[in-house]
Amino acid sequence: MSLNENWFTEANEETGTGFSLKIKAKLYEEQTPFQKLEIYDTETFGKLMILDGCTMVSTRDNFLYHEMMSHPALFTVKAPKRVLIIGGGDCGTLKEVLKHPEVELAQQIDIDEAVTLASEKYFPELCESNNDPRAELKFIDGIKWVAESAPGSYDVIIVDSTDPVGPALGLFSVEFYQNCFNALSEGGVLVQQSESPLTHQTLLKEMHTAFKEVGFSDTKTLPFPQPIYPTGWWSCTMAVKAGQAEAFRETDSTNKDFKTRYYNAGIHKGALASPPMFADEIGI
Amino acid sequence: MSLNENWFTEANEETGTGFSLKIKAKLYEEQTPFQKLEIYDTETFGKLMILDGCTMVSTRDNFLYHEMMSHPALFTVKAPKRVLIIGGGDCGTLKEVLKHPEVELAQQIDIDEAVTLASEKYFPELCESNNDPRAELKFIDGIKWVAESAPGSYDVIIVDSTDPVGPALGLFSVEFYQNCFNALSEGGVLVQQSESPLTHQTLLKEMHTAFKEVGFSDTKTLPFPQPIYPTGWWSCTMAVKAGQAEAFRETDSTNKDFKTRYYNAGIHKGALASPPMFADEIGI
Repeated sequence: MSLNENWFTEANEETGTGFSLKIKAKLYEEQTPFQKLEIYDTETFGKLMILDGCTMVSTRDNFLYHEMMSHPALFTVKAPKRVLIIGGGDCGTLKEVLKHPEVELAQQIDIDEAVTLASEKYFPELCESNNDPRAELKFIDGIKWVAESAPGSYDVIIVDSTDPVGPALGLFSVEFYQNCFNALSEGGVLVQQSESPLTHQTLLKEMHTAFKEVGFSDTKTLPFPQPIYPTGWWSCTMAVKAGQAEAFRETDSTNKDFKTRYYNAGIHKGALASPPMFADEIGI
Repeated sequence: MSLNENWFTEANEETGTGFSLKIKAKLYEEQTPFQKLEIYDTETFGKLMILDGCTMVSTRDNFLYHEMMSHPALFTVKAPKRVLIIGGGDCGTLKEVLKHPEVELAQQIDIDEAVTLASEKYFPELCESNNDPRAELKFIDGIKWVAESAPGSYDVIIVDSTDPVGPALGLFSVEFYQNCFNALSEGGVLVQQSESPLTHQTLLKEMHTAFKEVGFSDTKTLPFPQPIYPTGWWSCTMAVKAGQAEAFRETDSTNKDFKTRYYNAGIHKGALASPPMFADEIGI
């Protein structure tokens, strides 16, 4: 379903919302072993990657998501040396993670290599750190990888997945969160994309409850804009193994020696300032 | 153009984006002397008001816009006694303004009475303060009203208008801003809806330049989520007659004795924390 042949549309029956981008051409289509992958060239948003009909990445607005999925979590950890990214096959989160000089290892575990191959071709700017000696890309099952990780293996785990349906469903389970908790170091942080604060409030509540249930000491949902996702208002949710999710290395963030377009220390603090509806209506 | 008869779609050729809401029924349609007004009942966003094909207000998400159009500006002024709203015919901004106990007069000047009549019927919750003795609703030309206002008449002027095309074009002009400047008291603040920080950067730059040109001492764009507007990422821009736009009554905001769903002092500070792209790419 789309407006006409000049538009790509993601219409979501559950949220009753639809988002469309005007397209110049479809550049690529593939049924991978895991999902249907499409690439479009759009009129105003650059390239657009679609997985199973859902918008994943556009050239124009992906910086919002990738910066917010990485920098708040990495500045929350005292020394983010070992980082695990589950999903994230477009490599945009990996690129942001590797901007942190403290990082010694950044593993990206995405089940679908086709996503990374397409990203290397159509979003080369997101893949520019793939050959960083600290980067390690594996195309295997992330759920199994975390379950088999030695305790305390990682300082940050980033779950950069598709929506909680199909292949990503297991990434929103208590069992997976328990394995993440075990795989994290003492001061470690888990951060997961957590959908729209307006239309996915039940999921948000369930995530906070599950994070606490497996032992995380504090949790926090950070909202941010993401135009190509349903409602344009998106979020990530952090869970810290010890201490407070609001405590971050503010001085290091203020003095960071790498460039960002959306993230800075003030945006970080602003994202931590939960709107009243979070407590009053969602109970988070 | 819409997905099919079950969806309302606003497709914007300029931004190359479209937003759709699933509808149950069209409830009302009228060609007013100024614009085409439509009301829909949607599946998930409550009622929806459309003006000339553009989404204006939905039951579900209008709180984001109305709170951010009013509370930051009113908490920036020392004593917001006299408030002028230009546009704002749905009365949602008026309702938020009147939550401030310091307000003695809140005038809403919208050229099109049909908007307010439709809002009273389909969005009664936005109109619940219309009979407040401090409220004054006039259906006349706001541009002329401001031009003829005595100097220093208002502490806050809120320009809550449609896009800068058609009837609202004059609300984005240097002459109008000059008249607003004159109509404001010494410590007064002008705030205007300023479109999307992602797709309307030229307009934002022009607004800041024009505000400075007519004499405002400082300006600031505050972004916020607004799902039904193009890109879902919207903004208002404040111009202060004297002092800094970032200085606000934080203690009063923290201790406010009225309820909000999105706005609080932390959200206010977060909205003031311009992302790096504002300076680097827009020059604001």
